[in-house]
Amino acid sequence: MLTFNKEEFFAEETRGLALKEKIEEVVDEICREGYSNIFWIGIGGTYAYLSQMHHIVKAHSGILTFVEEAAEFSAAGNKQFTKDSVVVITSVTGDTREVGEAVSIAREKGARVIGYIGDVNTPLGQAATHPIECVGALFYKLYYTAFRFMYNAGDFPEYDQFTKEMERLPKALFNAKEAFDPLAGDYASRYGMEPLTYVLGAGNLWDYAYCYAMCVMEECQWIRTKSVNAGEFFHGTLELMEKGVNVLVLQGEDSSRPLTERAVRFLKRVTDKLTVIDTKDYCPEIVNPKFRGLLSPMIMYQLCERISKHLEKERKHPLEMRRYYRRLSY
Amino acid sequence: MLTFNKEEFFAEETRGLALKEKIEEVVDEICREGYSNIFWIGIGGTYAYLSQMHHIVKAHSGILTFVEEAAEFSAAGNKQFTKDSVVVITSVTGDTREVGEAVSIAREKGARVIGYIGDVNTPLGQAATHPIECVGALFYKLYYTAFRFMYNAGDFPEYDQFTKEMERLPKALFNAKEAFDPLAGDYASRYGMEPLTYVLGAGNLWDYAYCYAMCVMEECQWIRTKSVNAGEFFHGTLELMEKGVNVLVLQGEDSSRPLTERAVRFLKRVTDKLTVIDTKDYCPEIVNPKFRGLLSPMIMYQLCERISKHLEKERKHPLEMRRYYRRLSY
Repeated sequence: MLTFNKEEFFAEETRGLALKEKIEEVVDEICREGYSNIFWIGIGGTYAYLSQMHHIVKAHSGILTFVEEAAEFSAAGNKQFTKDSVVVITSVTGDTREVGEAVSIAREKGARVIGYIGDVNTPLGQAATHPIECVGALFYKLYYTAFRFMYNAGDFPEYDQFTKEMERLPKALFNAKEAFDPLAGDYASRYGMEPLTYVLGAGNLWDYAYCYAMCVMEECQWIRTKSVNAGEFFHGTLELMEKGVNVLVLQGEDSSRPLTERAVRFLKRVTDKLTVIDTKDYCPEIVNPKFRGLLSPMIMYQLCERISKHLEKERKHPLEMRRYYRRLSY
Repeated sequence: MLTFNKEEFFAEETRGLALKEKIEEVVDEICREGYSNIFWIGIGGTYAYLSQMHHIVKAHSGILTFVEEAAEFSAAGNKQFTKDSVVVITSVTGDTREVGEAVSIAREKGARVIGYIGDVNTPLGQAATHPIECVGALFYKLYYTAFRFMYNAGDFPEYDQFTKEMERLPKALFNAKEAFDPLAGDYASRYGMEPLTYVLGAGNLWDYAYCYAMCVMEECQWIRTKSVNAGEFFHGTLELMEKGVNVLVLQGEDSSRPLTERAVRFLKRVTDKLTVIDTKDYCPEIVNPKFRGLLSPMIMYQLCERISKHLEKERKHPLEMRRYYRRLSY
């Protein structure tokens, strides 16, 4: 596999699985104390990942859940936010400005803040009431958090079976990446230099489609993109489709799958540059259909990571290169 | 003013104002009966307009409010939805497929549905428990609905003063359109043929930026766009900015104004194709700053309508022309 360190991959996955007990402790404590609602607060990539959790919780649980873009939360507010709210944030650097402002507001109100931070000796690590240090393995943190809250609320009795299945993921995801890697290479060599890329998703993958377009293609590769929800696609963006338009569809297995399937049927008729990445083709190790739907974000993330690495090579554009972000003050 | 019928404009505005009493009756009745939460459910343009109302209600009121994209609502669901929920929909044609499916689900659960429909003798007109027939004047319907609910919840005591101010809007909006029309012409002649247009907004205008990009520029003009929230802009899309990139910023006056201001400061340094439409420059008839912030969506809508008409002329592309939407079955 191109630009891939197997040991590092398994080390990160193992770190993720190892967080289960610590996260259960924190969530169980909060549930014992009581809480009124969960606020997933992020910006850019973290907003998108947290939105995926929000989507899952609102669809499967009676827990009151809200997702807020950090800058908008600080500027506009949300009257449902009180001292009894629980905030979940995540930050690799621990110093994301907009998330810091939102957390200050949350702490002033007396709310608890679960913070997944790469290094707890940072402003966000210090600001969280429940900081948990871990580099990478983002989905493990968020899944254990969301599903433990749901389990404690009586809304996800399959928790033990589900988290047991998650232990299969490191091997299953590795196999998926290995199987997908040549296709990722194909995508990058065919479409890596396209002037504009449309990225479609739905359900618990919509926010990831938004994220992959903006936080990887735009930010890390300077590729022009438009992401659009597969349901929304039929109310505007479809008019731009024609031969030669590059479209990438991220198809998962949750109950919104028919939305992307409909878009794919339409797109096959109108463009000759269509790529569909379907989680269904990967991770046969996970058998339970409900769990497959719930885990689609974790599978898709690992597949798209392969595309990123091949885009980097084809475009001769290092994924780390920025011209403005954290290089210019604004 | 280009392609403008003054009589029709004032007739539509007057129809909007005239709905106040009827809407108050419906909302007051629902409030007397009791309700648990409001679900704004739409798709494409209506999703975006209803999202603006959701944004205003959640920021200013303790009412539990949810906005759902109709196709996603039907596919994924939301556990907060019960027989005690109140749905608000709007449809000109009265037969939007995805909204019809969502309303069926809502009615099966026993929920009440306020439906603003162009013609009540349509599937959606028949499906709503509280159908209100009116062509156009969308914002008046939605504002009276949202603010009456907030007033009845004790969260907007300024209701009478605010709706009194709204009576000034027809004249104020007409003046705004007339003043902006030459600038709209400038925009269309300079940037109408750009290969890609970025549209930014924040706060109660973010959803409108999304809508103007997708439902007007893409759907009605086949212009390639990317809309991005001004806060999110700094976490990905900014990397694509450089000389020659066309950006349109929709700036309003609610508490999220600093987000677009920050984006404008940055954009002035990196692109030479920046257009900022600022509601602050229009409608001096509305004086109260809080009301100005709340009414920014109504002002911006009327300004952008001028751009649409000039784009139509410059691009020689009728706003009504579709190649797929409602012309092809999919």
